Amino acid sequence: MKQSVIRSAEILCVGTELLIGDIVNTNAAYIARRLATLGIGVYRQSVVGDNPERLAEDLRAALERVDLVITSGGLGPTYDDLTKETAAKVFGREMELHEESLARIERYFAATGRVMTDNNRKQAMMPTGAIVLPNDYGTAPALALVREDGKTLVMLPGPPRELEPIFCEQVEPFLHPRCDAILYSRNIHIAGLGESAVESALPRELLDSTNPTLAPYCTAGEVRLRVTAKAENEQSAAALCDAMIQRIQTTAVAPYIYGIDVPSAEAALVAALSEKGLTVATAESCTGGLIAKRLTDIAGCSAVVAGGAVTYQTREKTAILGVSPELIERCSVVSAEVAEAMAKGALARFDTDLAIATTGYAGPGGGTERDPVGTVYIAVATKATVRVRRLSLSPWRDRAYIRTVAATNAILDAWRLLTASNG
Amino acid sequence: MKQSVIRSAEILCVGTELLIGDIVNTNAAYIARRLATLGIGVYRQSVVGDNPERLAEDLRAALERVDLVITSGGLGPTYDDLTKETAAKVFGREMELHEESLARIERYFAATGRVMTDNNRKQAMMPTGAIVLPNDYGTAPALALVREDGKTLVMLPGPPRELEPIFCEQVEPFLHPRCDAILYSRNIHIAGLGESAVESALPRELLDSTNPTLAPYCTAGEVRLRVTAKAENEQSAAALCDAMIQRIQTTAVAPYIYGIDVPSAEAALVAALSEKGLTVATAESCTGGLIAKRLTDIAGCSAVVAGGAVTYQTREKTAILGVSPELIERCSVVSAEVAEAMAKGALARFDTDLAIATTGYAGPGGGTERDPVGTVYIAVATKATVRVRRLSLSPWRDRAYIRTVAATNAILDAWRLLTASNG
Repeated sequence: MKQSVIRSAEILCVGTELLIGDIVNTNAAYIARRLATLGIGVYRQSVVGDNPERLAEDLRAALERVDLVITSGGLGPTYDDLTKETAAKVFGREMELHEESLARIERYFAATGRVMTDNNRKQAMMPTGAIVLPNDYGTAPALALVREDGKTLVMLPGPPRELEPIFCEQVEPFLHPRCDAILYSRNIHIAGLGESAVESALPRELLDSTNPTLAPYCTAGEVRLRVTAKAENEQSAAALCDAMIQRIQTTAVAPYIYGIDVPSAEAALVAALSEKGLTVATAESCTGGLIAKRLTDIAGCSAVVAGGAVTYQTREKTAILGVSPELIERCSVVSAEVAEAMAKGALARFDTDLAIATTGYAGPGGGTERDPVGTVYIAVATKATVRVRRLSLSPWRDRAYIRTVAATNAILDAWRLLTASNG
Repeated sequence: MKQSVIRSAEILCVGTELLIGDIVNTNAAYIARRLATLGIGVYRQSVVGDNPERLAEDLRAALERVDLVITSGGLGPTYDDLTKETAAKVFGREMELHEESLARIERYFAATGRVMTDNNRKQAMMPTGAIVLPNDYGTAPALALVREDGKTLVMLPGPPRELEPIFCEQVEPFLHPRCDAILYSRNIHIAGLGESAVESALPRELLDSTNPTLAPYCTAGEVRLRVTAKAENEQSAAALCDAMIQRIQTTAVAPYIYGIDVPSAEAALVAALSEKGLTVATAESCTGGLIAKRLTDIAGCSAVVAGGAVTYQTREKTAILGVSPELIERCSVVSAEVAEAMAKGALARFDTDLAIATTGYAGPGGGTERDPVGTVYIAVATKATVRVRRLSLSPWRDRAYIRTVAATNAILDAWRLLTASNG
């Protein structure tokens, strides 16, 4: 077998449930992103149903065009799982029992206390000469076939919960010796500046840099600036990225950076709170529990999240948070004053170091001339300081978008207050 | 042009950001689902980058294989948007200015108060003979080309927020006269029974029915049973579905059905509360605001959702919900007794008709021998009744799964209590 360099790939996802749109294909995007880090370019993604003729046709065509084909799906125990059998035909191989895989599948069933039905043996049948990539997350092993000319086919199980760890733990080490360069990325997380403002604030020579490259991505409420370097090994690529990050930290973007390679705004806030040994409470009206939900998404949040109040009704803002009815009457329940009083109320009620409050119109109904749908007042408070901000989003944005962006902004306002006041 | 029948389709999504995995391809699944309702089978989905040669090659190949090709993406104003130009070459057409589209784009910019840059004119350039499908949700119009032999290419803009309404409003009426059958689906929503239990509870002849067909789908905490009929028109197909639904309502599955064609458990609960004029409050520990968040996801929930307490810490369960410290000490904070006291506390504190409470171990840390990670106690209470249940999920499930399933079960327990006690 030739250990030729792999530079190009196609991704072929197999499954009728994907083809008819019953599930969204997240595997193709996942695999493409991981291949990029290996410096392997993806030329095409395809989805075919559980149809061996079309699958064989697509496998043959893809193997002509590129160095590497990666499939997902069709490795399970049922009669319509036919990826391995089809690949065996395309590669001119027989199917044979792989004893080690059978033992592994038997152990998997024993460990989860389930009875192994006979059709599960099928998952241990492999084309001759297959390189088996064991599956610690399910029953169907992954496998690879390498043709005489070096063209390679990697077959992965369909469930993302199995595919993703197998890719990292088995496929990447398998491919690594055959990659001639690796790509390495780091993400700079920015909030409070739009995508075009980020671009304007960066010097032209940084934006035009080819190694590493800079690419801004806009998501609800924040901008992610991806720095990607290409080099012979991870160490050299990481050094290129780090140098670029240091340069960016001297630009006008710097004050808006809230983290490097942090998974989310809430993770950054929970990490900052943990580090300082501080606690937080929430007081939510229009976001209705979303901020509390996102903070408690983070494993280990219990050291810092005391709790929160969802005061969706005006009455509860008074009953739970002690906001004065007179203030609500005078300023309106959606106002800077009420947001501030909610944050102060939560601080007192939950006896925390920090509180986050929101009140606004998420739509589709509601809103006033002064404060149409899309207006959200955000207050963040410590015992020493309160900051209130009016967020004004387009009223044609939907309810989910308005709530998501409001929550992200509120979480990041809290993060900023915390890091500024103690930084 | 032949108005031949369209039975088969391929979906071809264009865009480097899809190909490299920067965004997940939701358009292919959306288009596939909608084509299914028109009785059009999807044979293949592909993704190619902004590369006109590969796009032309794939367009030509797909038009040989199927009656209809639908593309998404590459219709925008920038130099790398090349779908229309490539299609024109494949169809042997010239590009010409479509005055009506230009006027529409100019109006769109005027309405949103933005300045129209020159490159936006490109979006009004169309292959000769194109059927233009106007875009009310963005600047790039959709379009269709029909070949002499009836083979048809429909090109849609990439952003889902534009693609989805254009598909419903423009593409479906365009395709409808050329479909020889339509598919019509209804969804039966079931909770409290697993997928295999649902199958066992249904008579064999229903499961084997070919028109309508029955297909169970398992999602976190519930099962959706999809009934799909094929007929000449929607009315006949709907009648076939309704007859099947009536038969299913006489089986052992019936008590577990919580809705037909309801978008979610929370929508069913909000609808039931609205109908009865009742209110609800939440008291969440391990779900940390997720139940409140999901209830307030529903537009118009403000008539029924009073508010909620996220009492993540033990102390807050006492301070906000009045749970006795002695009870917590005696029974443990994760217990049926504490869940019940939390629900009763929320009922009193928020003065609502219904309360939902959760306490459990979402992991990865925590848990006891009696109650390992994955254990959640759910309590639902009205002034007259309290029901408490212990949910026991696999400890190897991740935190997000455990929280999602616990929230769904809690919401449906509330729905059941409400509909049973008043039904």
